[in-house]
Amino acid sequence: MGNYKLTIQYDGTRYSGWQRLKTTGNTIQGKIEDVLSRMSGEPILITGASRTDAGVHALGQVANVHLPSDISEAQIRDYLNQYLPEDIAVIQVERVADSFHARYHSSVKTYEYSVVMDQRKYVFDHRYHYKLRKTLDIERMQEAARGLLGQHDFQGFCSTKMKKSSVRMIHEIIFEVDEHKSILRVTFVGDGFLYHMIRILMGTLIEIGLGQRELESIEDILFSKDRSKAGYLVPPEGLCLKGIDYLRTIITF
Amino acid sequence: MGNYKLTIQYDGTRYSGWQRLKTTGNTIQGKIEDVLSRMSGEPILITGASRTDAGVHALGQVANVHLPSDISEAQIRDYLNQYLPEDIAVIQVERVADSFHARYHSSVKTYEYSVVMDQRKYVFDHRYHYKLRKTLDIERMQEAARGLLGQHDFQGFCSTKMKKSSVRMIHEIIFEVDEHKSILRVTFVGDGFLYHMIRILMGTLIEIGLGQRELESIEDILFSKDRSKAGYLVPPEGLCLKGIDYLRTIITF
Repeated sequence: MGNYKLTIQYDGTRYSGWQRLKTTGNTIQGKIEDVLSRMSGEPILITGASRTDAGVHALGQVANVHLPSDISEAQIRDYLNQYLPEDIAVIQVERVADSFHARYHSSVKTYEYSVVMDQRKYVFDHRYHYKLRKTLDIERMQEAARGLLGQHDFQGFCSTKMKKSSVRMIHEIIFEVDEHKSILRVTFVGDGFLYHMIRILMGTLIEIGLGQRELESIEDILFSKDRSKAGYLVPPEGLCLKGIDYLRTIITF
Repeated sequence: MGNYKLTIQYDGTRYSGWQRLKTTGNTIQGKIEDVLSRMSGEPILITGASRTDAGVHALGQVANVHLPSDISEAQIRDYLNQYLPEDIAVIQVERVADSFHARYHSSVKTYEYSVVMDQRKYVFDHRYHYKLRKTLDIERMQEAARGLLGQHDFQGFCSTKMKKSSVRMIHEIIFEVDEHKSILRVTFVGDGFLYHMIRILMGTLIEIGLGQRELESIEDILFSKDRSKAGYLVPPEGLCLKGIDYLRTIITF
């Protein structure tokens, strides 16, 4: 048996998220496992690095899977791409150390959230933005975001009570606006994110950018760990998992 | 009453084409007429420049419509964009001369057809390409395309027998390939195109690019006007109406 690292892209619009559900459900993990099980002739389970929610997209999701080692990396990739639907693609298959675990060993995750601020319609990529259609004070949002950087207990920005630690490190929050000031893209780089954390962070930052919330509330949410003090949950279609980094020494085969 | 020129974008994936059908059908013309009728409180008919087929997209379709002139251009545009679905947008509304007719007065139409040549999957824009997944000899296609330029009777490249003239002028056929040689885009510029003409032209050129058809067959199809001698009808999702040009003097209000 060999351990393989898969790098996966998907348009999450049609799916109930990454994670295979016990009940019937159209999940990305389920689609990939079905194709690999068909290829191997036995039930195959894969481990994804991030459990993206229903409607969330990925440019660089990572998973690992143990498979009979007589199949080449290119064969696995081509078989998957042939039988997966058009909105899921495997862009890389790489044999890695047996001990490599896509979730436990990830060191840095990068997500991007896109918000439409103007009234324009985006006929060809409306599935990939949150259509807020309001002007945001981005400098104010950037100032507030500074208070989120570093290591904090983010329980106040999480939709469930964490049994394990809710302490995470955010390395960077980058704001970008296109030349027409139409679309705001916020990139979050961190060691990991709690359930709904980025979407609640964005809802909170948007309320600050709309002038509906004080800058100081960030500190209050972090300190109180009280979800009800944080902003609204923005919709999933604006969110994209850009990529996941691993330390080279962990994955080398 | 005023006459208004509308410039319209759409993702044609979900629609039965531009033209409103007598039977029930989800058409782009129908969607726009429904919103304008609701706005005006009376039944409104619009005239589109090109009757794009089911599944064909548009970056610059043009239509004209007669409406009460007490509504401003911006009001018409904003009302339409508010009530039209996300995959249809009105990007410009312009008051024009009463005599302006979107179909009869068009002087140049530009279409683009996109073909995927490699094995890669395009997760986020798979709706906008024809997935041929074969390598094409593009120089050979360009040589064949030269025989199509100028004025010809294109009946052999049309799916129906034309009652009126099937003579059209093709001004330009432009071939573009991205740096990875993954996607071929062919732009057709002409005074007008017959039913299915671009999709049959593309099917014929693709057969030439695959080495399955002689270059000389172009001349034979034009001369014989025999549809059965031409290539296959490529699928609609690769086709996009890029824009329609009018002589300035015709539309000036």
